[in-house]
Amino acid sequence: MNARDLLAGVPEVIHLGLDTVAEAAAATGSRVTTVPFLPPAGGEPARVAQLQRVSCGSLGVTIDAANQRAVDRFFASRPHLVGIALARDVIAGMADDLFLHAGPPISWERMCGPLRGAVMGGMLLEGLANTTEDAAALAAGGRVRFEPCHHHRAVGPMAGLITPSMPVFILEDVDGPGRGNRTFCTLNEGLGKVLRYGAYSDEVLIRLRMMRDELAPVLATALVAHGPIDLRLLMAQALQMGDEGHNRNRAATSLLLRELAPAIVRTAPDSEAAARVLEFIHRNDHFFLNLSMPMAKCMLLAAEGEDLSSMVTVMARNGTDFGIQISAMPGRWFVGPADMVRGLYFPGFSEADANPDIGDSAITETAGIGGFAMAAAPAIVQFVGGSAEDALATTRAMGRITIARNPTFAIPALSFAGAPTGIDVRLVEELSLLPTINTGIAHRSPGIGQVGAGLVNPPWACFHDALAAFTEHCLAHAPENVASEEA
Amino acid sequence: MNARDLLAGVPEVIHLGLDTVAEAAAATGSRVTTVPFLPPAGGEPARVAQLQRVSCGSLGVTIDAANQRAVDRFFASRPHLVGIALARDVIAGMADDLFLHAGPPISWERMCGPLRGAVMGGMLLEGLANTTEDAAALAAGGRVRFEPCHHHRAVGPMAGLITPSMPVFILEDVDGPGRGNRTFCTLNEGLGKVLRYGAYSDEVLIRLRMMRDELAPVLATALVAHGPIDLRLLMAQALQMGDEGHNRNRAATSLLLRELAPAIVRTAPDSEAAARVLEFIHRNDHFFLNLSMPMAKCMLLAAEGEDLSSMVTVMARNGTDFGIQISAMPGRWFVGPADMVRGLYFPGFSEADANPDIGDSAITETAGIGGFAMAAAPAIVQFVGGSAEDALATTRAMGRITIARNPTFAIPALSFAGAPTGIDVRLVEELSLLPTINTGIAHRSPGIGQVGAGLVNPPWACFHDALAAFTEHCLAHAPENVASEEA
Repeated sequence: MNARDLLAGVPEVIHLGLDTVAEAAAATGSRVTTVPFLPPAGGEPARVAQLQRVSCGSLGVTIDAANQRAVDRFFASRPHLVGIALARDVIAGMADDLFLHAGPPISWERMCGPLRGAVMGGMLLEGLANTTEDAAALAAGGRVRFEPCHHHRAVGPMAGLITPSMPVFILEDVDGPGRGNRTFCTLNEGLGKVLRYGAYSDEVLIRLRMMRDELAPVLATALVAHGPIDLRLLMAQALQMGDEGHNRNRAATSLLLRELAPAIVRTAPDSEAAARVLEFIHRNDHFFLNLSMPMAKCMLLAAEGEDLSSMVTVMARNGTDFGIQISAMPGRWFVGPADMVRGLYFPGFSEADANPDIGDSAITETAGIGGFAMAAAPAIVQFVGGSAEDALATTRAMGRITIARNPTFAIPALSFAGAPTGIDVRLVEELSLLPTINTGIAHRSPGIGQVGAGLVNPPWACFHDALAAFTEHCLAHAPENVASEEA
Repeated sequence: MNARDLLAGVPEVIHLGLDTVAEAAAATGSRVTTVPFLPPAGGEPARVAQLQRVSCGSLGVTIDAANQRAVDRFFASRPHLVGIALARDVIAGMADDLFLHAGPPISWERMCGPLRGAVMGGMLLEGLANTTEDAAALAAGGRVRFEPCHHHRAVGPMAGLITPSMPVFILEDVDGPGRGNRTFCTLNEGLGKVLRYGAYSDEVLIRLRMMRDELAPVLATALVAHGPIDLRLLMAQALQMGDEGHNRNRAATSLLLRELAPAIVRTAPDSEAAARVLEFIHRNDHFFLNLSMPMAKCMLLAAEGEDLSSMVTVMARNGTDFGIQISAMPGRWFVGPADMVRGLYFPGFSEADANPDIGDSAITETAGIGGFAMAAAPAIVQFVGGSAEDALATTRAMGRITIARNPTFAIPALSFAGAPTGIDVRLVEELSLLPTINTGIAHRSPGIGQVGAGLVNPPWACFHDALAAFTEHCLAHAPENVASEEA
């Protein structure tokens, strides 16, 4: 083809921007291909103004530096598994009448089915009720108080229920600026009918009692004999072995089991107890999820409280609301309605059965693993849907809204590039690109359990509100930057 | 740029083929880029004629069908780990004065350093000699006979030495046309100073005795309690977890350990013995190599003996010679000189220390894993050299010289395409493309051990000789095809 031929046919136009321009081109007979385009902050004038304030000029530079400090503190954290004990004995502020749950604060009235189911199971487990009817009535009547796990440096998958007598993993940051920080999570129950998906049958309660009376003591003793386990290094290995730390934990579970097995065998009261514990872990590829979550929480704690940082440090859902927090304003929730999960359903279930997005497990994405590290775990697409290429594309996309690449969490399929880490609220708004979360799907009714798995995003409200509050916070806390801009 | 500009400058020519043509273009002032090109069978007239005979016409179609039957039998095989016993008790033809070794047949005089070192260690282990000097003198003097592992349906990594008192894994094909086939391999010793790399110090012998007296009996008893283990399914999982089954076996080793751990604990004589066995496996990520190899051998046995199949069923090296066998002529070796390995050396070692390619482990590549499945194990490039892209490219290239894709051994990074399986001697010659093998590098002197890891190819002589013999075999065994061609 020579140059003349290029102009001989019908012009082909690739268009990005205002529709009216494309319409004019189409009117002349051109073939127009429109590229989807969202202006920064969705083009909403108030948010565009906020974004200009916090992204441009010297304040933008100051915030960039604060974000780098926050993510550097994250990278310097060294979360280790140091012990296992009952929640009431180790979680600060835990009380006999206190139940912790996933996500931002919520009352019984607004709780979704699976969270109510888990609470009812917790009432039975703690001996506060004898029947499920009593349990529901007592919970509704204020017999126990409800607080988020995150308010107690704990995290929990799905319903995320932690009651006083449940055993919890104890993680401790042993180095860096977060040294001494402790985080907590229950032990993973396995699949099928389990409390975290809102089931509360006898089978569920019997398993929880076994976990308290045998699994936790055997593991706790083995851990003392073995010594603390560096979870960051274990996670780094698992990312080389097809895990992403949220919906795929087979490698990390295997590595943990082989690491602890000799100590379990040497310290268990008898070989049958040791065998049962090894079998329990072996049968549950998600066993490590309840360690990748508090590991993520422990690393993110180190990044909290950097005064002018727009880095997201919490993402969590209670099945009704989705809440996020940012480094500059620790403890302050920005909340929106939890969305439905797009995914694959187990045989016999469909979207009509699904509860909205639930659980503290989005702490893994907040820490750059889970959905953000999907490229490390192409096999996960068989569980959450999509293709191996989609997994690579998701990790690349998350690289656009994050502050840094984690040098320790290298992803082989991306030429060992680090996992995209530290969501910047400003970038989410500027690029109109929400975080992607891998997650399980709970049945909407109490007592049933998991019905599928898939992908979900946080609601825009969380990020819009966080950007507005962060802008206000910066204007109040960095007046010299603002002054220099306006001079 | 318009069309005129294209012709205004110096012409740029991309050339493939005879050099004289490129030289003529260059003489006119064109810039010539030459693409490396090898004509089929290297353009050697006798081999081109052989290739035409066996690749074209009705004989070509008949051979294609035979290859498909051979690889289908491979896919239908179901190798299970069924037991552990002493070599003398289970390997057919084993005798007190017989030592088995890797690769094709070889005499003491032609053995390389590491193979001699392993033989000397074997003499000490069996109590046939008391000093290394005696061991060497007795071995040279014919005190024991030497035969290839492959002649006894066994395989061994590196030196591959199997002596009568060594414990071996017993694998059995439990279904399909290969039903009842049994293959054998020693248990992996771990890294550092080990017999398979030619070391024979006290440390090596003490470990081998411990493996015979504790590791093997404990595992054998646990295996009886557990029941047979489907190694094909375990390998399929490991390929989703970053293993390729030759130089990276961390996932498969982990999966095997968690599968067997409860039975080990329940059946070991005491908890300390169980703990030591679990620790031994935990400390050796290559433990599963000695199962992926006999698994591969078991699957390939099912493909042997398809009368007109050009599928490669054995590739093996003794550190001096490289030998291959093909389905149509079971037991017949086609041999050439073993090449040097291109790779990464451990600190303090260089290519000057390296022995040529050694070991039966190329049976993994013969079965479509190892170097052929490198795309499943991008992290391996940190061990053998290259980039993650190189790993993908190697698997894609091996797809060009193989008969089929293994539907069970899916590779996530290639959109779950199966591992390229069943090397066709004809395709290797037609495309002038040799198989790629991942492998360890042994020190050339006896007594030292591993010095690195890398990639290597078989010598061309193996394939040239196999093609010539296969062509002759076809002319003798399929006269009707030849007749129809010549009619």
